[in-house]
Amino acid sequence: RINADRLWDSLMEMAKIGPGVAGGNNRQTLTDADAEGRALFQKWCEDAGMSMGVDTMGNMFATREGTDPDALPVYMGSHLDTQPTGGKYDGVLGVLGALEAVRSMNDLGIKTKHPIVIANWTNEEGTRFAPAMLSSGVFAGIHTQDWAYDRVDAEGKKFGDELKRIGWVGDEEVGARKMHAMFELHIEQGPILEAEEKDIGVVTHGQGLSWTQVTVTGKESHTGSTPMPMRKNAGLGMGRILELVDEIAWSHKPDAVGAAGHIDIYPNSRNVIPGKAVFTVDFRSPNLATIQDMEKRLAEGAKKICDEMGLEVELEKVGGFDPVEFDKDCVSAVRDAADRLGYSHRDIISGAGHDACWINQVAPTAMIMCPCVDGLSHNEAEEISKDWAMAGADVLFHAALETAEI
Amino acid sequence: RINADRLWDSLMEMAKIGPGVAGGNNRQTLTDADAEGRALFQKWCEDAGMSMGVDTMGNMFATREGTDPDALPVYMGSHLDTQPTGGKYDGVLGVLGALEAVRSMNDLGIKTKHPIVIANWTNEEGTRFAPAMLSSGVFAGIHTQDWAYDRVDAEGKKFGDELKRIGWVGDEEVGARKMHAMFELHIEQGPILEAEEKDIGVVTHGQGLSWTQVTVTGKESHTGSTPMPMRKNAGLGMGRILELVDEIAWSHKPDAVGAAGHIDIYPNSRNVIPGKAVFTVDFRSPNLATIQDMEKRLAEGAKKICDEMGLEVELEKVGGFDPVEFDKDCVSAVRDAADRLGYSHRDIISGAGHDACWINQVAPTAMIMCPCVDGLSHNEAEEISKDWAMAGADVLFHAALETAEI
Ligand SMILES: NC(=O)NCCC(=O)O
Ligand SMILES: NC(=O)NCCC(=O)O
Repeated sequence: RINADRLWDSLMEMAKIGPGVAGGNNRQTLTDADAEGRALFQKWCEDAGMSMGVDTMGNMFATREGTDPDALPVYMGSHLDTQPTGGKYDGVLGVLGALEAVRSMNDLGIKTKHPIVIANWTNEEGTRFAPAMLSSGVFAGIHTQDWAYDRVDAEGKKFGDELKRIGWVGDEEVGARKMHAMFELHIEQGPILEAEEKDIGVVTHGQGLSWTQVTVTGKESHTGSTPMPMRKNAGLGMGRILELVDEIAWSHKPDAVGAAGHIDIYPNSRNVIPGKAVFTVDFRSPNLATIQDMEKRLAEGAKKICDEMGLEVELEKVGGFDPVEFDKDCVSAVRDAADRLGYSHRDIISGAGHDACWINQVAPTAMIMCPCVDGLSHNEAEEISKDWAMAGADVLFHAALETAEI
Repeated sequence: RINADRLWDSLMEMAKIGPGVAGGNNRQTLTDADAEGRALFQKWCEDAGMSMGVDTMGNMFATREGTDPDALPVYMGSHLDTQPTGGKYDGVLGVLGALEAVRSMNDLGIKTKHPIVIANWTNEEGTRFAPAMLSSGVFAGIHTQDWAYDRVDAEGKKFGDELKRIGWVGDEEVGARKMHAMFELHIEQGPILEAEEKDIGVVTHGQGLSWTQVTVTGKESHTGSTPMPMRKNAGLGMGRILELVDEIAWSHKPDAVGAAGHIDIYPNSRNVIPGKAVFTVDFRSPNLATIQDMEKRLAEGAKKICDEMGLEVELEKVGGFDPVEFDKDCVSAVRDAADRLGYSHRDIISGAGHDACWINQVAPTAMIMCPCVDGLSHNEAEEISKDWAMAGADVLFHAALETAEI
């Protein structure tokens, strides 16, 4: 068993870096706070006798040697970056739960045949730089590094420049590492495990995602003196498309979700009819055909709405991945560990995207979920209990040990 | 007749200060560009033999002495501040048209019984600091100066602090000046005069305005893992209220308009269900009862929409004025001047709010409008012809001379 108090203390210590405004965290990727969080994690890994490698995407890999020089490592990990108004556990539990597993191996003097590596993947959240899971995506060969370096934030700053600015461009070629397996522990970010009083979610699949950036162009004009029939109101066009997005998602109930989290209006002045609206539609489903149908209906419906209003509309896909099926053996290792440890569990589909979804394309991968209060995440009020954290880290510890062979 | 070339040159010279990104201007109130524009205007006034007074709201008053020491001055003026993506004429024509009228009086050696004063009112646009026409409003006793000083911009900066920062807090008590009359020349900002090929709009009334800031509060949560029935999507609630605003305005066709120009979403992250939406609804009508009906239906309808979605909604009135009837004698002076000069004209209701609307409460006031291309304003592409500018300034010149008595 892992040491739940030590795990919890580390979670609380990390949460002091990049504090939010309401008890959570704002430790967005490639900010000074991110750099500070990375340095603390590195120190903890070194204190646990591990050596740190960093690749050219800033992905961090802390290694605990194995007994067989030829055996590929077993990876554990997740991400330390957060949403702008994020919680203390989303991602962090997966990294520090892995650290706690290694600390427990040290306490117990356990040696494994395969080396153990803890990973911290850069820019999982995708808030500052779309898409999400950017650096695990480059690692898995989904995106090129050049393309990733060119991603810009809302202020026009480039990913590559910001990575350099915070001093975390490593010297390892990204994606060069080979893995025996990878396990990611993460909070559910949804309500199912808590409602069913299960300690552990054995993640068999992940739902797919599609991010479409919609740009509606109208004509800036005066809100007072422009007659109603002459208006080309891009904000109103956006409002109608938001309604359409909701309708489309409900029509695939219960196997789809849809919303727009990001909305910008130009010039954003009280007495100017919006000349432009830019917003990102987020559709998800465990079924690829459903995602494709939603994308198609969004494109057709947005065009129809805008045509009728004399508006222009452009759609650009800015992120996406297909539904994922995790590795059967890794999934079994998780389920068996939960059984052995006596934790209640159920199979579950991940509603969110995770670094494990990309890594699954290049190595046998699985995920472990623990409940979170009210299913709430991407909110500073995100909360878990120490017992839930313990159960998750215990299962991670055992699944990894089993796979790394004692 | 005024000198159209000189007027045009001054308009183009002023437009160099705070240039926009598409041929127009971004000379928002209390920015460094605003300070630069003010300094240029002051220099031009002094070159024309006028003396400058500035009040504690930064309103500028350039005086040309009259022959009767007891006669109250006749005012002309408008504003030099612009929208963030504004035109070169909105407001500016009224100030520089007045300057051209004084320059022409000088050329012709005309002396008037009443002094002539040119006013530049601070923060007419209301983009950076709501409400619009803020400083003419304080001058007319509608708002207190303390309240005005406390208005904040999107970055949290206060009006009072920014006025001090740019160095334009004057020593005159605001509102202490008494006026014989006031005339404001302005571009129509709507399509009527151009469509009917009229040189001049004789403004008899101004429509009323109501600005309601709506705050919809939902719950931030994950766009992927939050099931549809558990969502409290403040962005979707806003979308539905935008549709309602449009419906309400159309229902009073053709005597009302409505839209939201300002929209902010929080935390504005692609994979977070918006927890909060803040936006400003702009309703206008020449009929007070219509405005009141629109406000009531917005309040009731927004509450209903939000109740059904499990959202909270708060409405705050952040700006407004009743429909205005301008002074009959001043209006006649404008109409007579247009007749005498042979310019085609029609009576018109101002669709936009203007400083003249507030000043009308403390002094006999009227407005003169000239056409603008496609009725377009609050857009960098705002355009007028030199002939239109000339006609407007000619009528201003003659209406003011008539009222100031030669
Ligand atoms: N787990 C998580 O919140 N990942 C961010 C990517 C996503 O939006 O699913
Ligand atoms: N004329 C003008 O654009 N004034 C700003 C106030 C308003 O929105 O009507």
